[in-house]
Amino acid sequence: MKGFINDNILLFNKTAVELYNNVAKNQPIYDYHCHLSAKEIYEDKVYPSITDLWIEEDDNGHAFGDHYKWRLMRANGVSEKYITGDGDKKEKFIRWADTLSYAFNNPLFVWSHLELKRYFDIDEVLSKDNASRIYDEIQKKMPYRSARTLIKMSNVDTIITTDDPCSNLEYHDKLNSDPSFETKIYPSFRPDSLVDIDKSDFIDNVKLLEKTTSIKIVDLRSFLEAIDSRVDFFNSKGCYIADHGVLDLVYEDATCEEANSILQKALSCKETTRKERNMFQTYMLIHLGKKYKELSWAQQYHLQALRNINKDMFDKLGKDTGFDAMDDKNIVEHVGKLLSKLNENDNLPKTIIYSLNPKDYEALLATCYCFQKDYAPSKIQFGAAWWFLDHRDGMERQFKALSNFGLFGHFIGMLTDSRSFLSYARHEYFRRVLCSYVGDIVEKGEFPNDKELLENMIKNICYGNAKKYFNR
Amino acid sequence: MKGFINDNILLFNKTAVELYNNVAKNQPIYDYHCHLSAKEIYEDKVYPSITDLWIEEDDNGHAFGDHYKWRLMRANGVSEKYITGDGDKKEKFIRWADTLSYAFNNPLFVWSHLELKRYFDIDEVLSKDNASRIYDEIQKKMPYRSARTLIKMSNVDTIITTDDPCSNLEYHDKLNSDPSFETKIYPSFRPDSLVDIDKSDFIDNVKLLEKTTSIKIVDLRSFLEAIDSRVDFFNSKGCYIADHGVLDLVYEDATCEEANSILQKALSCKETTRKERNMFQTYMLIHLGKKYKELSWAQQYHLQALRNINKDMFDKLGKDTGFDAMDDKNIVEHVGKLLSKLNENDNLPKTIIYSLNPKDYEALLATCYCFQKDYAPSKIQFGAAWWFLDHRDGMERQFKALSNFGLFGHFIGMLTDSRSFLSYARHEYFRRVLCSYVGDIVEKGEFPNDKELLENMIKNICYGNAKKYFNR
Amino acid sequence: MKGFINDNILLFNKTAVELYNNVAKNQPIYDYHCHLSAKEIYEDKVYPSITDLWIEEDDNGHAFGDHYKWRLMRANGVSEKYITGDGDKKEKFIRWADTLSYAFNNPLFVWSHLELKRYFDIDEVLSKDNASRIYDEIQKKMPYRSARTLIKMSNVDTIITTDDPCSNLEYHDKLNSDPSFETKIYPSFRPDSLVDIDKSDFIDNVKLLEKTTSIKIVDLRSFLEAIDSRVDFFNSKGCYIADHGVLDLVYEDATCEEANSILQKALSCKETTRKERNMFQTYMLIHLGKKYKELSWAQQYHLQALRNINKDMFDKLGKDTGFDAMDDKNIVEHVGKLLSKLNENDNLPKTIIYSLNPKDYEALLATCYCFQKDYAPSKIQFGAAWWFLDHRDGMERQFKALSNFGLFGHFIGMLTDSRSFLSYARHEYFRRVLCSYVGDIVEKGEFPNDKELLENMIKNICYGNAKKYFNR
Repeated sequence: MKGFINDNILLFNKTAVELYNNVAKNQPIYDYHCHLSAKEIYEDKVYPSITDLWIEEDDNGHAFGDHYKWRLMRANGVSEKYITGDGDKKEKFIRWADTLSYAFNNPLFVWSHLELKRYFDIDEVLSKDNASRIYDEIQKKMPYRSARTLIKMSNVDTIITTDDPCSNLEYHDKLNSDPSFETKIYPSFRPDSLVDIDKSDFIDNVKLLEKTTSIKIVDLRSFLEAIDSRVDFFNSKGCYIADHGVLDLVYEDATCEEANSILQKALSCKETTRKERNMFQTYMLIHLGKKYKELSWAQQYHLQALRNINKDMFDKLGKDTGFDAMDDKNIVEHVGKLLSKLNENDNLPKTIIYSLNPKDYEALLATCYCFQKDYAPSKIQFGAAWWFLDHRDGMERQFKALSNFGLFGHFIGMLTDSRSFLSYARHEYFRRVLCSYVGDIVEKGEFPNDKELLENMIKNICYGNAKKYFNR
Repeated sequence: MKGFINDNILLFNKTAVELYNNVAKNQPIYDYHCHLSAKEIYEDKVYPSITDLWIEEDDNGHAFGDHYKWRLMRANGVSEKYITGDGDKKEKFIRWADTLSYAFNNPLFVWSHLELKRYFDIDEVLSKDNASRIYDEIQKKMPYRSARTLIKMSNVDTIITTDDPCSNLEYHDKLNSDPSFETKIYPSFRPDSLVDIDKSDFIDNVKLLEKTTSIKIVDLRSFLEAIDSRVDFFNSKGCYIADHGVLDLVYEDATCEEANSILQKALSCKETTRKERNMFQTYMLIHLGKKYKELSWAQQYHLQALRNINKDMFDKLGKDTGFDAMDDKNIVEHVGKLLSKLNENDNLPKTIIYSLNPKDYEALLATCYCFQKDYAPSKIQFGAAWWFLDHRDGMERQFKALSNFGLFGHFIGMLTDSRSFLSYARHEYFRRVLCSYVGDIVEKGEFPNDKELLENMIKNICYGNAKKYFNR
Repeated sequence: MKGFINDNILLFNKTAVELYNNVAKNQPIYDYHCHLSAKEIYEDKVYPSITDLWIEEDDNGHAFGDHYKWRLMRANGVSEKYITGDGDKKEKFIRWADTLSYAFNNPLFVWSHLELKRYFDIDEVLSKDNASRIYDEIQKKMPYRSARTLIKMSNVDTIITTDDPCSNLEYHDKLNSDPSFETKIYPSFRPDSLVDIDKSDFIDNVKLLEKTTSIKIVDLRSFLEAIDSRVDFFNSKGCYIADHGVLDLVYEDATCEEANSILQKALSCKETTRKERNMFQTYMLIHLGKKYKELSWAQQYHLQALRNINKDMFDKLGKDTGFDAMDDKNIVEHVGKLLSKLNENDNLPKTIIYSLNPKDYEALLATCYCFQKDYAPSKIQFGAAWWFLDHRDGMERQFKALSNFGLFGHFIGMLTDSRSFLSYARHEYFRRVLCSYVGDIVEKGEFPNDKELLENMIKNICYGNAKKYFNR
């Protein structure tokens, strides 16, 4: 079956077709949050097969790849051998093709076909019957689909990777001094490893920080000094965004003294209580927020992830292997208190807040909009539909919530949040859904059909707003 | 651009067009909950400008006006000077016009244009380019748009204001003895100030109650006696509705003795614990519910507001200035216990329950429908989409929930919940969305296209059901 | 008014019409969860009137019947006399007909007319005006609408009833040795009465278990021995499904010793604490899960019911009389911990998880999909829209969530969950909504219009997947 990915896919009305073709499809990509590897970009990595690029590659014995696909393959009854195991690469591809046939209205169905079409000119619906032949076809093109080629094919203007505070950003440096590559690459600062005091690797992370900064960490003062020096280091490398994967946000005030004794407790290998952990998290988020504000950075809060919930599989495969879920905690009061605390004395930086649970959308938006300020239009951004919600229904829900409660015209739009260079096709997916949403409202007569106004809005949501918001 | 507000705006199908034109648009308005000022109505206030009426007016140094608009203006980067500050009035209007251009699919976009069209015959889409000229045009009409004129233009049958227990209802009296004004005006009793024992102004409110009633308040008995006397006073003035803004509803049983000692504690300026505050709230809601039932009043519970979450701005501007949000607590068990307690011995009055968080809709409806009684059809009402949810998506969500779980035909419909005389246009907005919803289900073949049945239902939801429910 | 139930009801697009007519409507029913009475089936019960079958029948002084209808009748102001009381049967029917006129877009409106059409060939829209005549018409057919006739008319392949652990399954035995009845009937094991240690009848239930098993229950060991013997007994009768109505799921680890002392406490009539109750529930769910896994059973978790919340009516009418609601607790973390615990050492049986609160859908799905295994495609199933959610909006919401997050192609589809033999019409309702959902996505171009693939998927969701999943 051919022609599934046609020109009008996901464009559900005439206005959408026009907006997409006149404006959206030509905009560059400002990818302000992803998990791409600067090293792979610098080295212009070539993947041995579509399976390595698309499903799984072995990274020194650690399973690494697209855990979105892994989850569905497991649900299709595929054995782990053909997911993260040592199964034949072509066989893995065929199992994925078979899985897709059951993935009715799952975003991976459209994403996968969009990626095959855009990057490999495959125009067939993938199935277990044609998977072997299609694998062979793709295989011929793989040598010509290096990391940089895929980025160029995607018209990417800016890429913001996600980096550990102790990273030396070596490959960002190298990329920045390589005139042959036009896409701008910056790191973002992701200090979860130094905030999550109750995690078993906290002390190891502190030791790494000590080694990286040559600052002896004996108390809160030296700990913060070390972290701040990393923020400054990132800043010197052009970084302007921080990212927090905030697990279980419970706002709990803590003085310096309290934070210090909680840290001391952790450093001497004693277990922290739930309350202490909350206090320390709150303290750190406030400290770091202030620091980011001084440097005019933006920060991101990724809320409501519930990680590694399958103990058996976590023990076998480790993290980021498809065993994460979304939390359903009550978070609004805590988010409000945190933002309010930072907002005192104007210490709140530009902030983008995501929730993984769509039941939070309305309440979080109402909270975000209590902290807007005049110096940056829509300074507090309600982030795009994230991870599990990155599909048409999720995007539409985020669009509706944002427009019903706020100013859709200032939305900074899509990010990739992916480890794969093929995932830039998700921007196309997003833009098509965006144009359909806007077109629908316009054709219903709920917003004027003012071409200039609408085209500007689309252009800005696709690219201009992010560029202006981050001010780079 | 002209003609944005056309005859068929928000009417999305043929049945909707017919139902709206044949029935809905001609119904009077029974506004059973709003924040209009009886004084302004009595004095037939004329506003100096559309900015005073629409955006902000200074009320003895306290910012007062449409905080819905203020939130969006802040999110558009407008400085406080042109929101609640001393900026030029025309400039404020222009900034609002500019903000609107970013408010794609925000209800304020349609509301604003509907108000300009209906009350000032402005037929253009407002923008920063034409805002100055439109301001001048409106300005000419302002002297002829007094409070009473706007009410008459809106075909309002009944207005229920929201009043403090200590109000002397002077202007309600005056209005009731003024034969020149046909709309009925009644107060509603809103005793939050005497229920929220943990608020800093509780003692001041008790003192005011003491002064108003000349009852010395020394314990629970005298406190309740004083409050009950105010309920009786309101009742003597024709009041038949109470309203509770219930913050953080946690059901916690309390005996008289316990409630008394919590009250004594508060009266002697000691801080109450979370649990004590919950106990006192529960005690008061039960006491007052019984009292309302005796008088055949209806009561309203407004749930899940989270107020004044931006401390910095609360300190600067006070309450009701656009810094409220919606809560996401688990409330169903508590609502159930409260209704069940009142329902013992048939002490539960007619009750209308609103939640500000749409994630509660289904669960709250299921709870409400456990307490229906034969003496009043749909005695427990699931309230219309409220505040942040007062837009097409929110209304449709409320319609769907109510019809999926209950009897849509007994819905008492829309209220204004506004401080502005222009907000009656929201009834038109509601009625159009209502007709579209009903038309869609009928045209899908899920309900018979029985003209009489449908027209009756629409008529009743627009006006008749409220009239019958409140029995006035 | 005639023709309301026409061939295309609930089929909203061309693809839906084809899928329904070519495939869905011809599939047999695999009803893997219902509350039908094996005794009534065996005795081929004939109901004296449609009121007895449809609304209420007296079961030795205990009100028994369709509490979905009762709730709406109460909300219509019908007195209890004509609901569960001793009112005239025809009058009850007329009151229900009147109630229906207010039930715009409530599933009972379509269900009721579908049942009247399919089982009694009534082609009119029921109203209080024609109800008396229609009652008489139906009355003539009642003698020919016995339990077995209705089942045969519905093309039911398999029925799984819901049974108390102490049931002797006498009528299942009798039915299995009756060659004249072709539908397969199996019990399911529902041990809530032995898990809910905080319920007032727990000790009575233990005594009944003692009597049934002749095992003296003095401690945890003998208690579990007795329960396990009932699981084995059910297994010997062909049972392969367990069902848990899990109230308030809070995961709390307990050792054998702890569980034993909690049980001892309950057996000696001492009240258990909240925490003890949680520990015991957790312990039992783990114990039973393991047992089911050994026998290759599937288990069902029905989450978020909030039962008997109207104390006054519970005292008067007892349980299952229309005074249940849905809970809004945070459950995801607890579900995750329970599944993870069972999953260690591969003790987790096939599991179907339902939530009564649709705000949980996304988060529960993400949780379920962390526990898939290769030996059964979609081993952890996200259950169909349940009880209050069993309407088009609820089903569509479940379909969207399941397909967005998982593999819709492996969905085991609809169950009846009803006490009435007429409720098999709900499978028709479900299948029509299913075909419309699938057709809509296909016609929007988001899934290939591959006839074979689509027809297979529909066939499997209607029947084949359940058959394969349960492996009978």
